[in-house]
Formats: sequence, C-alpha cells, structure tokens
Amino acid sequence: MSRRQIHLALHPYGVGGPGQHGLWKDPRVAKDASIDIRYYIDLAQAAEAALFDALFVVDSQFINATYPAHYLNRLEPLTLLSAVATHTTHLGLVATASSTYNSPFNLARRLASLDLISGGRAGWNVVTSFDTGTSRNYGLEEHLDYTTRYGRALEFVEVARGLWDSYEDDAFPADVERNLFLDPSRLHELNHVGEHFSVAGPLNISRSAQGQPVIFQAGVSEEGRAFAAEVAEGIYAPGGSLEQAQTYYRDIKRRTAAAGRNPDHIKIFIHGSPVVGATDDEARRREQEIFDEDNDFGRNLALLGRSFGAYDFSVHDLDAPFPDVAHLAERGGRTSATAIIERARRDNLTLRQVAESLGGFRRTPFVGAPDTVADAIETWFEAGTFDGINLAFRTREELDRFVDGVVPILRRRGLFRTEYTSDTLRGNLGLPVPVNRHAAAREGVDASRVAS
Amino acid sequence: MSRRQIHLALHPYGVGGPGQHGLWKDPRVAKDASIDIRYYIDLAQAAEAALFDALFVVDSQFINATYPAHYLNRLEPLTLLSAVATHTTHLGLVATASSTYNSPFNLARRLASLDLISGGRAGWNVVTSFDTGTSRNYGLEEHLDYTTRYGRALEFVEVARGLWDSYEDDAFPADVERNLFLDPSRLHELNHVGEHFSVAGPLNISRSAQGQPVIFQAGVSEEGRAFAAEVAEGIYAPGGSLEQAQTYYRDIKRRTAAAGRNPDHIKIFIHGSPVVGATDDEARRREQEIFDEDNDFGRNLALLGRSFGAYDFSVHDLDAPFPDVAHLAERGGRTSATAIIERARRDNLTLRQVAESLGGFRRTPFVGAPDTVADAIETWFEAGTFDGINLAFRTREELDRFVDGVVPILRRRGLFRTEYTSDTLRGNLGLPVPVNRHAAAREGVDASRVAS
Ligand SMILES: Cc1cc2nc3c(=O)[nH]c(=O)nc-3n(C[C@H](O)[C@H](O)[C@H](O)COP(=O)(O)O)c2cc1C
Ligand SMILES: Cc1cc2nc3c(=O)[nH]c(=O)nc-3n(C[C@H](O)[C@H](O)[C@H](O)COP(=O)(O)O)c2cc1C
Repeated sequence: MSRRQIHLALHPYGVGGPGQHGLWKDPRVAKDASIDIRYYIDLAQAAEAALFDALFVVDSQFINATYPAHYLNRLEPLTLLSAVATHTTHLGLVATASSTYNSPFNLARRLASLDLISGGRAGWNVVTSFDTGTSRNYGLEEHLDYTTRYGRALEFVEVARGLWDSYEDDAFPADVERNLFLDPSRLHELNHVGEHFSVAGPLNISRSAQGQPVIFQAGVSEEGRAFAAEVAEGIYAPGGSLEQAQTYYRDIKRRTAAAGRNPDHIKIFIHGSPVVGATDDEARRREQEIFDEDNDFGRNLALLGRSFGAYDFSVHDLDAPFPDVAHLAERGGRTSATAIIERARRDNLTLRQVAESLGGFRRTPFVGAPDTVADAIETWFEAGTFDGINLAFRTREELDRFVDGVVPILRRRGLFRTEYTSDTLRGNLGLPVPVNRHAAAREGVDASRVAS
Repeated sequence: MSRRQIHLALHPYGVGGPGQHGLWKDPRVAKDASIDIRYYIDLAQAAEAALFDALFVVDSQFINATYPAHYLNRLEPLTLLSAVATHTTHLGLVATASSTYNSPFNLARRLASLDLISGGRAGWNVVTSFDTGTSRNYGLEEHLDYTTRYGRALEFVEVARGLWDSYEDDAFPADVERNLFLDPSRLHELNHVGEHFSVAGPLNISRSAQGQPVIFQAGVSEEGRAFAAEVAEGIYAPGGSLEQAQTYYRDIKRRTAAAGRNPDHIKIFIHGSPVVGATDDEARRREQEIFDEDNDFGRNLALLGRSFGAYDFSVHDLDAPFPDVAHLAERGGRTSATAIIERARRDNLTLRQVAESLGGFRRTPFVGAPDTVADAIETWFEAGTFDGINLAFRTREELDRFVDGVVPILRRRGLFRTEYTSDTLRGNLGLPVPVNRHAAAREGVDASRVAS
C-alpha cells in the first residue's frame, strides 16, 4: 500500500456568533459548547478514533457585538489543547496564534509546553491576525502593515526555532554518581538581535519527541505565500474551485522548492465541509437547508465587513453601487477584499448584491452519498489540489456521518490510514524531525534548514 | 465547628537545577518529572484527595547553566494547569505569571480560559519577575525598576479585571425563538487608556463560576505590600521567624483595611516544608540529612547571586569582606539583597561566611512526629502568622507522611476541612465572587472594589 495518502484534520466550529454557525440552535449541542472543554475533548476523541491527523483550532482576538467572528466566546487555543492533550494519545494538536500580538519567548515556551504535555503532537498555525481590530487590544491604534507583519512573522519563527533548540537532547545526564543533573555544555543561549526582536535565551524547556512543534500557516497574499515557502510545514489553504486550488497548490510547491526545501515537507490542507446523506438527493437537500439557515442578510453584511476591518457596511445605501472602501482593506483582509472589489466593479454590483452573493462562498464540492463524497475527494486529491483536508462540520451528526460513511471508503481505496504509524504529529504527517542545530553543528551536519 | 480553619496549598518542586532540589537523585522520582504532566496530575490528585485548597505553581523565565532556578526545565504554568484541570474537580489551580513580561489581553484571556476549563478554580500569582535576566528574553537590556514594575502590575490587574467583566453573566440568552444567541447590551468594551496600557476590549471569553480568577501576589518590598493591599486576595508571603511572620501578617491586614477593603479577603500563605517522622528524633535526623544534601557551597554561592541579578560571586575572593554589590540589587531581589548586605556589614562577614549561612534559610519550624508538627502549625496559626501554608516537599513520601500523619490531627482539632464545601477556589478560600461591574452599575450596586 504505497499509495500517497490523504491527511485529515478536524476544525471544530464554535457555537454562536451573531447569526453565524447555527450550531447553537441544535438541541443536541450545549449552548455554551464553545467554552466547554468536554465538547472539545469529545470531538478530539472522535477524531482520534477515526485516525485523523490533528485537531486544528483557529483563533481571533477581536470581537464586537455585531461582528461574525467564528465564535464570540471561546477558550484560548493553547490552554484548550493542553487540556485535550491528556485525553488523547495520537492526535496532533494545532493551535493558531498570532505572531503580531505575542512575544517570541512567551509563545515559544507555551508551544513547547504543549508539545511536551502531548508527547510531541503540537503544531502552531502562525497567523499575522486577520482582524485588524486586534491592534487596539494591544495598544496599537492601527494594525501593522503587511510588510511589517510578515517580516515580524518570519523573524518570530526563526527566534522560536532557535529557542526550541536551547537544550540538546542529551542535556540531562542526571548522573547521580557524577552529581551531574545538567550537562552545561548542552544548554545554549540564542542571543538573537534582529529587526523586530532581541531575545537572549536560553528557553527553560527542552525538546519533545518530535523535536519541535510543526509550523503551519494560513494566508493567501503574496507575502503570506513567500512566508509559507520559507518556513511552513503545513498550510491552511484558501481552497476555492478545483482550478483555483490546483493553481495554489502548484504555486506553493514551486515556491518551496525554489526556497531550497523539499516540497513534500509542506503539507497543504484545504477547508472542507462535507455534507453526507444516505443518497445524493438527501445530502443536497441537507446542504440547501444549511445554506438557507446560514444565509442571513445581516450576517452576510457583517461577514463582508470582516475583510474590511470589521467595517459596518450598513451605513451605506444597499442599492447603490458597491462603495469605494479599498483603503479599509490595506492592513487586514487585503486578498479577499481585493477579490470582492474587483468582482463588484467587473459585474457592476450593488452592495446588496455583493452581500447576497457571500453565502455561496461556503458551498462545498463534497456533497452526496458516501461514495459520491469519496469520489469527489479522490478526484480533487488526484488533481493535485491538496495533501490534506481541514474538516469542519455544522453538527456532531455530520461528523459522524462522514467518519462512518466516507472514511471507510477512503481507507478501502488505500487513501487513508488504517492505523496510526506514529504517536507524534510529525510522524503522522510524514515530516522530518529537525536535528538540534547545536548537535548538528558539532557533528558537522547542515541543520540550517531544520524543517527540510 | 465554627473554628477558623487553615488553608493548605501544594507548591510542587521541580527536579534538578544545578545542585539544587536533590529530588532528581531520588530513585522513586522520574528524572524528567518537571516536564512530565503525569507527575503534576499525580501530585494534584494527591492534594485533592487530602482536600487541599490549591496547587500553587511558581515560575521564572530566566535560566542559565549555573543558575539555581527552581528548576531548569519546566512546563509553562497555564498550559500545565489546564492539563491538570480536567483530572481534578475541586482543587484550586494557581499559576504564577509576570505582569512585567506579558500583555494584559493575552494573559487575561489565558487565565479566563483556565478558569472556565477548571469550572472556576483558577488563581493568578502576580509577580513582577524576580529574575532580572528575564528582561533580555523580552528585548530589554535592563529589568524595569521597582516603581515602573509595580505601577505596571497594578494597572495590569485593573485591566485584566475590566476585561474579565466583558460579558455579563446573562449575556447569552441563546433564545432560538427570538433568534438571539448574544444579547449585545450585555457585552462591553473596556476602552482603557492608562500610563502603561491601552486596551479596547471586549475580551472574547465569558466569566466562570467564580466570576474572576483569584489574584495572588508574592513580593515583600514596600511596593509589593502596597500592591497587595490594593488588589491581592492571596499572598505567598516570605515567612521567616514567628515574630517576622506575625509582623508581616499584621502589616498586610492593616494596610488592606486602610485601603478600604475587608482584611479577611486577603489570605496570607507562608511557605512550609514540614518534615514528619515516626518520632521527633527521626524527623530531626531526616531534616538534617536534607539540609546537608542541599547545603552545597557552589549552590549557595549561586543562590546568593540570584538576589543580585544572577551575579557570579565566584569572581571575588571568598575570604575577603563581603563585596560592595548593593547596586546590583536595585532592580531585582532588593529586599533579600538588602537584608544580606546589612547582616554582612553588621557581623563583619566574609563572602564565604555569607554563602555558608544561606543553607540555614530553609530550616523549617514544622519538624517532628505528627503531633509535634500539628502543634507547631497550630501555635503559628493562633499567633496570627498565616491564613494558609504553601507546602513544598522534597519527595512524594514527605507529602504522604504529612497528609497521612498531620492532616488528620489538624482535622480532629477542627483546624482543617473534612470535606470541600465548594467546587470553586473562591468558595474554598472564603472569598466573595466579584459582581460584574456592568451589572452592578445598572443595579446601582457599588462594585468599584470588586474583590472586597
Ligand atoms: C483557511 C484560512 C484560515 C485562516 N485562519 C486564521 C485564523 O484562525 N486566525 C487569523 O487571525 N487569521 C486566519 N487566517 C488569515 C491569515 O492569517 C491572514 O491574516 C489573512 O489571510 C490575510 O492575509 P493574507 O492576505 O496573507 O491572506 C486564515 C486564512 C485562511 C486562508
Ligand atoms: C514566597 C515568595 C514566592 C515568590 N515566587 C515568585 C515566583 O514564582 N516568580 C517570580 O518571578 N518571583 C517570585 N517572587 C518574587 C517576587 O515576585 C518579587 O519579584 C521579589 O520578591 C522582589 O520584589 P520584592 O522586593 O517586592 O519582594 C516570590 C517572592 C516570595 C516572597
């Protein structure tokens, strides 16, 4: 069974957010599920029973009363995943955290801590913070611009990786006879001085079974892609149509190779919200129901605002041409905002038409009876659109239908694992364990590209 | 049983640190216990079985190869305690975190997350960071001075408390009929603009069963005491002799009352490392063994250096008078450093004599057969030296001897609980639940002093 296999991660939705994610209306889901650790433990255990690669927790640090953040009321990803860690044994645990609004020492330490608590299953989804309003929670009137944000992100990851190598793997002989707990020659300062950070080190925590947490990234701009090619080992990709996904996939693999890295060592995950039914018809009906329920005009208007810094579009005439708001997207959702503006201009759309069309963004190609969904997934996979899928389900039932119906088919076709072959995230993703840079230097190995 | 009762918390020691905490030499303790989450879960469950109030995790963000940090290789407190939370049900979980090297939004969020994960059992030990070298891990050449550090700490706690009240307790009607998940009138921005921070809010997480995490503090300087009187609900106090502890206790209670707060609403914990034996003699022999093992000259010299910013005293002539190093303590361990310098001057001590005398600092008044230890604890308690004890044990056996031998006696005397009367930390400590400030304002209640 040497067939290349698909990776699957679970992206848990929150419940609530004004008008969004009708999960809270589902009588089977607790209203406070998004702050209930048992909800996440339960989902994680279901994902692990299905042999998924990871639980992938997205994040935002900005809300307001009308803003459709994924969910309003949420646990912080690293505390959440640490609690989940001790109730799972093989599932990867990927935490989204901002390189714009954190300090490298502090965040590197928390990620390393999760990595040890989980026995080598931590991942970090590096985001530069989509929601521009976050800046005002951190003392900045304005969100940093793209160049600064991605420059900072790159240096942040370099510093974190340096800190994660503070202790070599043989740093603690704990030799009672020699009265030697630590071998001080195996503990290293970093003494990083860069454009954005000065960090002396060492970090006061050692490496895990997978060496270092896996670096993910989610960002579609030119800057985001360049950053991914440089340092990411996984991507939460934008998806889109099959052709768009293909183009993106090829672009990232090409850039990664051009950066001197092995393109197999960057795993591209697209978003997927499969809707599975007993028959294709039933599934399509269910998809339409979900679409109709979520397709609330107020919600769409607010969602539109998100790409423009939580801008309140309701101040404009809905039936006038789409307003001139390009300047609002400069620092936040520039990529999606630009696409919206260009389409509005090309097709001469009013604000109402733009907002109404937004619901359709979340149509999924993976709808139907189990075989149909498995076929679609296989087609997309073979077409070179992804290495993995980040799966999000509106209800627990949808997850179960996918796991019980589709996963066994993928497995029969040799497209998905029949058992975990590793108990680290790197192991299951097929990523190499980075050699400690100090050990490598001593042994003459080139570890300058630790992740390749 | 209306007798005033003692609170007990467990302060887990790490293993290792060069020459310090011989725990790593104990064949019953795993060498990597300080990064093994099972070690902490196991200790926490033992503490909970004994009906202790809390697990109290200290912290530092500075190490070097010769520096006796409590332990070199450690889990980050908030990820650690989140993992412990789901394996306990009543035990308080107190995380030490620095107000000097964190951002209020980020830290308030992580603490609130722990508070929800644990069902209302989180505490925050606010420190301004003892180890001056921490600054260089956060881009600062020098540790902030006392005034700035404590000014920042006070504003930090005020901002955190403001953020924790972002959602009123009835903010989520989740009313399907009215299609109303969030009641937007119950979500509040903070819009704090102060000397050290500008934070808009709201925080994207709601309050726990105990309203807000409990604020602890650990600092003995004038600035530290003023800060405690203003905002702390618990203190990890320096201890010392019975008379010193009495004086400190009276001082803090007086200051707290002078700040307009109820002095019962600040719980003073002293450090205690009881050594219990079958007989008084056996216990004293064991204490001497522990003392001798820990009383390593190199370790004492490094420990001395800790109060002077990890200063390396070995560059000085050991047999010359204690060197003039007062300036080194200005920003770090000023209180302990000043005491050391004054004693050296008064008694005309050499550097060697000062270092040798340091081992004695950790002598404990709680040594003997179970009855003897219980008597000593009762005497100290009745003398008004503490409300609680933060217990630290060199081995798991020492903890068990205390729990099995001394705790039942305290219980029989009505000095310690026979069952948990609450499942929140505030409930068990006898601290009031802070009313949400916005609810209070609407209802005309004065919540300006939320913690009193
Ligand atoms: C699939 C996907 C998931 C994302 N998840 C997050 C997230 O959880 N938190 C966040 O702040 N940004 C998230 N982002 C946003 C990116 O980090 C980035 O800020 C945004 O896409 C704008 O930058 P860009 O123009 O480079 O894409 C996500 C983006 C994509 C495409
Ligand atoms: C019993 C006790 C425990 C302490 N625990 C910590 C700790 O875990 N982390 C830390 O950085 N400082 C800790 N401190 C130090 C204080 O936060 C403070 O920085 C130090 O005492 C110097 O300030 P001061 O002169 O106000 O005491 C502790 C102090 C005491 C007395």
